Amino acid sequence: MPQFLSTSDPGFEAAFAHLLSQKREDSPDVDAAVAAIIAEVRARGDAALVDLTARFDRVTLSPDRLRFSEAEIEGLCAQVPDAERAALELAAGRIRAYHARQMPRDEMWADEIGATLGWRWTPVTAAGLYVPGGLASYPSSVLMNAIPAKVAGVRRLAVTVPTPDGVANPLVLLACRIAGVDEVFRLGGAQAIAALAYGTESVRPVDKVTGPGNAYVAAAKRRVFGKVGIDMIAGPSEILVIADRDNDPDFVALDLLSQAEHDESAQAILVTDDPAFGQAVARAVERHLETLPRAAIAGTSWRDFGAVIVVRSMDEAAALADRIAAEHLELLVADPEALAARISHAGAIFLGPWTPEAIGDYIGGPNHVLPTARTARFSSGLSVMDFLKRTTLSRMTPEALRALGPSAEILARAERLEAHGLSVRVRLDRLNG
Amino acid sequence: MPQFLSTSDPGFEAAFAHLLSQKREDSPDVDAAVAAIIAEVRARGDAALVDLTARFDRVTLSPDRLRFSEAEIEGLCAQVPDAERAALELAAGRIRAYHARQMPRDEMWADEIGATLGWRWTPVTAAGLYVPGGLASYPSSVLMNAIPAKVAGVRRLAVTVPTPDGVANPLVLLACRIAGVDEVFRLGGAQAIAALAYGTESVRPVDKVTGPGNAYVAAAKRRVFGKVGIDMIAGPSEILVIADRDNDPDFVALDLLSQAEHDESAQAILVTDDPAFGQAVARAVERHLETLPRAAIAGTSWRDFGAVIVVRSMDEAAALADRIAAEHLELLVADPEALAARISHAGAIFLGPWTPEAIGDYIGGPNHVLPTARTARFSSGLSVMDFLKRTTLSRMTPEALRALGPSAEILARAERLEAHGLSVRVRLDRLNG
Repeated sequence: MPQFLSTSDPGFEAAFAHLLSQKREDSPDVDAAVAAIIAEVRARGDAALVDLTARFDRVTLSPDRLRFSEAEIEGLCAQVPDAERAALELAAGRIRAYHARQMPRDEMWADEIGATLGWRWTPVTAAGLYVPGGLASYPSSVLMNAIPAKVAGVRRLAVTVPTPDGVANPLVLLACRIAGVDEVFRLGGAQAIAALAYGTESVRPVDKVTGPGNAYVAAAKRRVFGKVGIDMIAGPSEILVIADRDNDPDFVALDLLSQAEHDESAQAILVTDDPAFGQAVARAVERHLETLPRAAIAGTSWRDFGAVIVVRSMDEAAALADRIAAEHLELLVADPEALAARISHAGAIFLGPWTPEAIGDYIGGPNHVLPTARTARFSSGLSVMDFLKRTTLSRMTPEALRALGPSAEILARAERLEAHGLSVRVRLDRLNG
Repeated sequence: MPQFLSTSDPGFEAAFAHLLSQKREDSPDVDAAVAAIIAEVRARGDAALVDLTARFDRVTLSPDRLRFSEAEIEGLCAQVPDAERAALELAAGRIRAYHARQMPRDEMWADEIGATLGWRWTPVTAAGLYVPGGLASYPSSVLMNAIPAKVAGVRRLAVTVPTPDGVANPLVLLACRIAGVDEVFRLGGAQAIAALAYGTESVRPVDKVTGPGNAYVAAAKRRVFGKVGIDMIAGPSEILVIADRDNDPDFVALDLLSQAEHDESAQAILVTDDPAFGQAVARAVERHLETLPRAAIAGTSWRDFGAVIVVRSMDEAAALADRIAAEHLELLVADPEALAARISHAGAIFLGPWTPEAIGDYIGGPNHVLPTARTARFSSGLSVMDFLKRTTLSRMTPEALRALGPSAEILARAERLEAHGLSVRVRLDRLNG
């Protein structure tokens, strides 16, 4: 059973603080190993990739087989059953439509002194997407990363996905094809990140690297940050469900379990104003754990990090939600929009009983790459913005320079930056002379 | 004299590649020292801040003097001459007006199956701004960091600024007041970043930390990233000027020097299609170096990292500009807008002869915190977006769930995430039963 807390309990504050500060993730120190792998790829290029792939993925490839050929992709895609293909295509269309609305607009205007000011957005030229191998090789994550990049206008999008023991996941390749990925490489681990950031004979370097991965991949992303841009380093997944008694305990139990089954370090929390409902949900969770295929993972997550918190009011629930700053937040209450308006910090909010988080994971349209570990206090989920950058523009007329130049000069002198001041002064003198 | 390169020279590609890859910054390895400082602040709070401030800034403060009082700020602000106050206020008003236009809009819509989708933006609750001490203690940087935060709606904005030997910069305090900063602390170095991220008895923790600093500050920001959000880690400043012969060499020389005077590691590059104009600019630079107060710094930067590149066409200039991806880009050509449209990568573009970069540093309106070291390929200058985060919203109706649920179930099963599928199935069964 998970922890049961109640805000009316005198020990609540301490127990809640403990829940928030629980360390859920082991971070093995792999930095030295990763540094060595990156150095090897930079020094030896394809040869290093071939050696490292043989060592870690037990596949021996010649350099010309690092990249999947069109025929290979075609062959793998043909293995996908029609129903799965149709589901992927429906998801891709909805994700594309949602992200197309995120495209920001360029702006240019003339202000009251005649200065022209503005900004414009341009895509990064090339991006790389890391896709894990094995059990965590999710075609849905390919769509969620690749589609925003393509909507943003990224010209070249490369995917790396390891093929342990030579096994490729047809659904991942099909997702790449549907999303418009340009190149797919049989590469995983820190060596894949190094290849994307620095390039080799076969892998052209990119400007931005995104995508989930294990501790080696995360450490490699941290190391190449600066040389290329990276997305967030995601931690274990989380869900917070706020539900009143007018809900089916089964709905809530399965929503909690759909986070818990991801990972033993995942966290599922229910906040409710009805203790009996909280108990009913907990019983439903236990019941489903008897049959769920991933019961071992989900059960560990639920017992170690799960919680049922009973509040005295939905005001308290909103305040706790902001302190938890959950990756996923479901609001199963009479007026979910009103409650949402009172909560500031969450990666994604799912409103009402017909919006299980799993819809958002696959097919709703919004991105499923979301801030974890309370980082929703200051960061956002993946979007087209991750593949765009803004350039500011300004143009002064002689009149605008006359209006602003003297003040710029005063500030430059105050900061003892004489050349800054002179670059303005020489122009003012020209205009006045 | 700086390097002279020409694209028609057979050795150009190698020389240009060398120019791009030159290591301009010493990065002393201060990480162990910074880790110890952060641990000390976390363990001992204010007492650690007092000790570390005595050691590094040679000021002994009681904990109740870590924060500037209103009366102290008042007294310091009163020392600022009227002309400087008026210039700061003009700058603040323009920066505020520019950044107010950046505020993104919330969106909600119903799609063709009746699902309600959208997102909304909310500010981070509290932000901290690091302001360096000594020579690099720039009031303009206070405005450029603090105003976007306040425009975004940050409720509590704390500034830390060291006061070496007890000396405070009145202009910095006035800039804090004009920008609406809520709290100012006499703190610098890694200890200031630790206090902002983790909090002490006197310093409440924040959610986001921005602002420039030395190697210790940069290392501390990297270490607290994840616990709080950070802005970029900025490197030495850069300018690229693309100018044709119809320009005053003096304008261009002073614009180049206004970067070079920042730092011996700064980089100033001129690209021109007229070798004689390039020579004239180089001569003008040398002439100004005879009288410039910061000639030692500017001269070292210009000799070690400066360059004049002669191109055969403005097409070549545009291509080089994208490879350089400069922090600041001035276009002094007949049709600067047309040339700007052919360049993708730059932090800020200054159009035409009356827009010296110094105007952008102080008073134009756009932010002067910009991506350095070629990171304009994938990142943007500071903006209101750095103090906002986006929450996605979705609400399914029963009809929308009927339309999407079966495909979500198929994808969940394909990824072997049974609880995900069941959370959808249980609802579909309810709707159909």
